[in-house]
Amino acid sequence: MEKTVGKQSIRFEEAIHLISAASIAGKKEGEGPLGKLFDKISADPCFGMETWEKAESAMQRSAVETALEKAEMESKAVRFLFGGDLLGQLIATSFGAEELGIPFFGLYGACSTCGESLALAAMTVAAGFGDPVMAVTSSHFGGAEKQFRFPLEYGNQRPLSATWTVTGAGAFLLSKKGGRVRIPEVTIGKVVDYGVKDSLNMGACMAPAAADTIERNLEDLGREPEDYDRIITGDLGYVGKQILLDLLKGRGIDIKEQHMDCGIEIFDRESQDTHSGGSGCGCSAVTLAALILPKLTSGEWKRVLFVPTGALLSTVSYNEGQSVPGIAHGVVLEHC
Amino acid sequence: MEKTVGKQSIRFEEAIHLISAASIAGKKEGEGPLGKLFDKISADPCFGMETWEKAESAMQRSAVETALEKAEMESKAVRFLFGGDLLGQLIATSFGAEELGIPFFGLYGACSTCGESLALAAMTVAAGFGDPVMAVTSSHFGGAEKQFRFPLEYGNQRPLSATWTVTGAGAFLLSKKGGRVRIPEVTIGKVVDYGVKDSLNMGACMAPAAADTIERNLEDLGREPEDYDRIITGDLGYVGKQILLDLLKGRGIDIKEQHMDCGIEIFDRESQDTHSGGSGCGCSAVTLAALILPKLTSGEWKRVLFVPTGALLSTVSYNEGQSVPGIAHGVVLEHC
Repeated sequence: MEKTVGKQSIRFEEAIHLISAASIAGKKEGEGPLGKLFDKISADPCFGMETWEKAESAMQRSAVETALEKAEMESKAVRFLFGGDLLGQLIATSFGAEELGIPFFGLYGACSTCGESLALAAMTVAAGFGDPVMAVTSSHFGGAEKQFRFPLEYGNQRPLSATWTVTGAGAFLLSKKGGRVRIPEVTIGKVVDYGVKDSLNMGACMAPAAADTIERNLEDLGREPEDYDRIITGDLGYVGKQILLDLLKGRGIDIKEQHMDCGIEIFDRESQDTHSGGSGCGCSAVTLAALILPKLTSGEWKRVLFVPTGALLSTVSYNEGQSVPGIAHGVVLEHC
Repeated sequence: MEKTVGKQSIRFEEAIHLISAASIAGKKEGEGPLGKLFDKISADPCFGMETWEKAESAMQRSAVETALEKAEMESKAVRFLFGGDLLGQLIATSFGAEELGIPFFGLYGACSTCGESLALAAMTVAAGFGDPVMAVTSSHFGGAEKQFRFPLEYGNQRPLSATWTVTGAGAFLLSKKGGRVRIPEVTIGKVVDYGVKDSLNMGACMAPAAADTIERNLEDLGREPEDYDRIITGDLGYVGKQILLDLLKGRGIDIKEQHMDCGIEIFDRESQDTHSGGSGCGCSAVTLAALILPKLTSGEWKRVLFVPTGALLSTVSYNEGQSVPGIAHGVVLEHC
């Protein structure tokens, strides 16, 4: 069987299994539509630590430990850890990974990192380089606002196109065998830049990358949208969703029936004041662990395309007037 | 043959070849001991752009393009790009990768990223997921000082333990066949934290991680230091070198004869005012491309262990009083 398929996809000779997953979320996420599905919800936004960054590290560790507990494994059994977050120099992950003592690959793909980590973890297991392998990603509302936007105390007004960074961490344990969900293929994204410069409209920045990766996945694997029960983007939100549907329609691809967005699922638009939806590495990660995987495990869904989306900006690039390019990685998930 | 060896190493069934490499460096690096060995030296620290960050992106692109030219290939022939830099949210790499149009994995391992990118690129080629695959890393003195330390205009005094961030980018093209240098094994590092908090003594922060990875490599692969012509760390500098030698000696491992450090090689200590030496993702990358690979290609060296070292700090973690953990990845390089 060909391993490299089309221009950007990889098909594993034997699909890689997701044998365990865990989701840790913050209070606001716990009050949202997915609240009852998370493994743990912390009422304390600092997760018992003194800073948001340490809180995020603690949340990541908790996600990894919970996934290990479910698989009845210890961290020393894990061969490699692929992890990332939104913070400059990945400090949440670096400090989180330290205590775990697992050989570590640090990744940055903004909010697409969940897809990047799953793809690389699956590639590593498939090649026989390690088994099991862990993938973990996280984001924290307080840490992200501090890093990218305004001090929380300033209480800035948020435009309706803005998304709300999810406080959450998702961890996934991958192996050659076990569990009821497997990864048969992945599609690796390119950096796509339509020149959008509005960091408070990240859905618009990321939608072109999502469209590119979805189109590439369908073409590389010879599939139609109907071949998926759901095509699930990471955090385009309401604004980005419409742009994605329009962009793909212009290319003759209609995914209206299949499309779902983690950023839309995670918060209640009316009651939670989250405007365009949720975002952050943690958004797609906790939605995958809490909502998507259980539906695949039960067989309610047979096959989905999971496409975490990232907006590649920093305060430096923004202040220097650069655009916000996007990237999206596609992970095919199947019931088995 | 076993693919996973010992606790942290991978042995490829067939060693992966480095078929092309390129080094782009700044003016100061060009005036140093390796000056004549670089592919290109830019007299303009901005590489024709208006900001240091854009300069770094331009330098990365130039490294990739030069490596492709040497291999007589176009970027569309490259299946995947593994890349990273020191800047928050990897903006140098993201904006550099954009124009190349290659499916992209963003990596962050601070100055160890050169090792991380080579390891993942080799793993991807070895597994048959893509061929050729490109690895690229860079750093820029101006961008790094702005990001991590003081405005250049401030002209702060630098302690003697401080290193000088190298302005440079190195790109490496990996394939199953070709060239005279191959990668038979890699050793993936763990995050190691000895509690050092001095961001102006990064050698001390990273030496424990380097010691850990070197010890692990020797143990996993059943080798002695003498089995390597050189054991080459990334950017420990003079201060970190001594700590590394002492730490390993305490564990019964003497690498004094084999040890070399890219940060020490790249600048002239007396005339260039660089104190403890060079550092940055670009330091190990350009030294590998310009100095190490030619010696392996000619057969002067038969086998070396290349160990880029990273200090996992950000201004946020530093300002919040956190320590600076280190990480180091080992890549074995052989003449063939």
